[in-house]
Amino acid sequence: MAEYSKILLDESEMPTQWYNIIPDLPEPPPPPLHPGTHEPIGPDDLAPLFPMDLIMQEVTTDSYVDIPGEVLDVYKLWRPSPLYRARRLEKALDTPAKIYYKYEGVSPAGSHKPNTSVPQAYYNAKAGTKKITTETGAGQWGSSLAFATAQYGIECEVWQVAASYAQKPYRKTMMEIWGASVHPSPSDQTEAGRSLLAQDPDNPGSLGIAISEAVEAAVQDPDTKYALGSVLNHVLLHQTIIGEEALLQLAKVGDTPDVLVGCTGGGSNFAGLSFPFLREKLAGKMNPTIRCVEPAASPSLTKGEYRYDFGDTMGMTPLVKMHTLGHSFIPDPIHAGGLRYHGMAPLVSHIYELGLCEAIAIGQTECFTGAIQFAKSEGIVPAPEPTHAIAAAIREALECKESGEEKVILTALCGHGHMDMAAYDAFLSGEMVDYDHRDADIAEAMAKVPVIA
Amino acid sequence: MAEYSKILLDESEMPTQWYNIIPDLPEPPPPPLHPGTHEPIGPDDLAPLFPMDLIMQEVTTDSYVDIPGEVLDVYKLWRPSPLYRARRLEKALDTPAKIYYKYEGVSPAGSHKPNTSVPQAYYNAKAGTKKITTETGAGQWGSSLAFATAQYGIECEVWQVAASYAQKPYRKTMMEIWGASVHPSPSDQTEAGRSLLAQDPDNPGSLGIAISEAVEAAVQDPDTKYALGSVLNHVLLHQTIIGEEALLQLAKVGDTPDVLVGCTGGGSNFAGLSFPFLREKLAGKMNPTIRCVEPAASPSLTKGEYRYDFGDTMGMTPLVKMHTLGHSFIPDPIHAGGLRYHGMAPLVSHIYELGLCEAIAIGQTECFTGAIQFAKSEGIVPAPEPTHAIAAAIREALECKESGEEKVILTALCGHGHMDMAAYDAFLSGEMVDYDHRDADIAEAMAKVPVIA
Repeated sequence: MAEYSKILLDESEMPTQWYNIIPDLPEPPPPPLHPGTHEPIGPDDLAPLFPMDLIMQEVTTDSYVDIPGEVLDVYKLWRPSPLYRARRLEKALDTPAKIYYKYEGVSPAGSHKPNTSVPQAYYNAKAGTKKITTETGAGQWGSSLAFATAQYGIECEVWQVAASYAQKPYRKTMMEIWGASVHPSPSDQTEAGRSLLAQDPDNPGSLGIAISEAVEAAVQDPDTKYALGSVLNHVLLHQTIIGEEALLQLAKVGDTPDVLVGCTGGGSNFAGLSFPFLREKLAGKMNPTIRCVEPAASPSLTKGEYRYDFGDTMGMTPLVKMHTLGHSFIPDPIHAGGLRYHGMAPLVSHIYELGLCEAIAIGQTECFTGAIQFAKSEGIVPAPEPTHAIAAAIREALECKESGEEKVILTALCGHGHMDMAAYDAFLSGEMVDYDHRDADIAEAMAKVPVIA
Repeated sequence: MAEYSKILLDESEMPTQWYNIIPDLPEPPPPPLHPGTHEPIGPDDLAPLFPMDLIMQEVTTDSYVDIPGEVLDVYKLWRPSPLYRARRLEKALDTPAKIYYKYEGVSPAGSHKPNTSVPQAYYNAKAGTKKITTETGAGQWGSSLAFATAQYGIECEVWQVAASYAQKPYRKTMMEIWGASVHPSPSDQTEAGRSLLAQDPDNPGSLGIAISEAVEAAVQDPDTKYALGSVLNHVLLHQTIIGEEALLQLAKVGDTPDVLVGCTGGGSNFAGLSFPFLREKLAGKMNPTIRCVEPAASPSLTKGEYRYDFGDTMGMTPLVKMHTLGHSFIPDPIHAGGLRYHGMAPLVSHIYELGLCEAIAIGQTECFTGAIQFAKSEGIVPAPEPTHAIAAAIREALECKESGEEKVILTALCGHGHMDMAAYDAFLSGEMVDYDHRDADIAEAMAKVPVIA
């Protein structure tokens, strides 16, 4: 194939299984612990929140899980997603490197999140769930779940951080188009919300508070369950369709990656792209460097510790062993809202500890500089989150320019930036700032992390 | 192929020629006239505004025009675009009809407009043009031209209607990401703008004023040209790649359309989809009903007259024979800003006069009702303009439900609605209204149309 720009797969070539990396690792990840007893939790502990099919996927030791036909039918609305060769960016950088990017912004919600919201909605519908609750910040996850629940005829109720609800009304409208109901959080719909509003009627909310409200609403109604958009094993599992497709697409043009870079917030986009390639690496079939790129303002891998900690700010979830900045750490308000998380997926953290991936942190002005270069050459305007992956790919490509190496660089463009014009406006008008590492704040938050015997 | 959702073409299958329908028509369209002499204008009259390659395409009698390799390279950033079978919408409507839609929202700017902005930028760059000026309303065309000029390293200067500039700042940001400079119109950059601001510093602007400013800036500098996003023959020519691809895609699944519906504002999206199918119809190879769908608030085909009239509100352009509501008619403020035009492309008007297509008008609340049904079943949130095509396709599919006919319906989803959430918010909150036909206003505007001997 000469001078192609993108490598497509036909629907008939779409992978029909998700990949579970755990059986292929030299040792399994440490189990989650009950927050009270500090004993490993079992499937029944999670039953009030999730349907049993998802709980079994969370703990499965099978290497592959079949994707149900009803999920494949909805995936086909946008999948397989294209793999692009960034020829015009390569020319703009004058690099001998080949840059490939897997583009997930073609989904109806505009990001990789529907890869997991769709199966989560499906398994809930199959189990008789009438409604799913969730939290959302800027709205990427909430809109993805709203789209997915509409496909299976179940209700969706979203608690959106009040500050975002007020500042970014368009994502709320998107959720409502797909039929979801959206509350600003804290809300008067839950005990948690009402108690916080009683103290401060103008509470701007946080992701931690919104999780508390969504969980409270779910556990009070047997027909209602809760859904999470990252961090958990079953979420990472669903995202592996990204990497499975990319493997097939690169094989079509006879390339294997020398470097794979992915942005990391909770870890699901990175895991989705990299785990299938890591399987090939562990099997000795290729040897890519696999690199996480995190925001300098929320550097859980590069500045955090590998400890048991809570997944939420309020300390209500099970304890999971992960790289953490401390569950009370609130990252600075960078525009990549989807990467502002104090921890890292336990499975990504475990793989990092095993030395199977490396990590770097990049500040947001370098990211947006790269994003403008990308938009001018490749056309697509990236979401703030994947600008981190783009900036890292550009760094690597410029090193190749210096060294003359013709490396194959693979990354994921996990979403478009159509709803993020305010971030670009801040950058173009010179108002965007980088943030310090806040070592003292991280140390203060780490002091509050529970000590597990 | 069983249960496919979309039919893809590989880049190697992408058409390499645009189709010019004029030689295939029983008679050619009437020529444009000089506004002063009322004599047919020649290529030289257009030379101050457009490069000669585009002028020759405007008047060509060739049936096919080769797409330059440098244009194909940029088209490949998103083309070929997918053709979807709307299986989930069909199920939701419980119709025996098959509904296909060609999706143009995959372009970087999110609509079909880059199909022509890219070749327009290319031919300008080839002719040594340093800068292209244009007008834009909500910003779809301006952002498409900004994207295209970035690909060929030339400048882009956009005059955006002041009311839109203030109310919809995100499209402006999008244009700036791709490097364009954007002025609210009227502006202090031109004589026309300054004279209007002197009369009223708060003038909200109009598309007609913005055209005047962009044209004034272009004619004053020999290195600057002007670009138009619809109406002209060469624009419609470039858009035929939509229909050429759709023909190939439908052939892959062995279907031919019984009904083809497309929304019409200036006419380029409709022409792009329908002209290649009209060629097949004229050749006796298929026999689809071809239907224009216009907004009830701007019904140039269903309520206008076929007359020589000006293309712009101020009366500065050549006189073209078209269906018009009168160049001074200002359509009501429907959300489909791209369809708020007093006239219709001369070529589409001519074909309508020849009886080769029919037309209906639909109010915006019916359109948005259909759009919500579409988004809930097919996922994609449509732009306000193609909601007219969707509403017409749904009407046809429901008639099939009544009659039991298994018709094949083809339409074009010419853009996504990610930048149009305010319109959806108005609909969902019950604030959207339909508009009366305004027959008296149309009659008043028609009285100002020049009488040509």
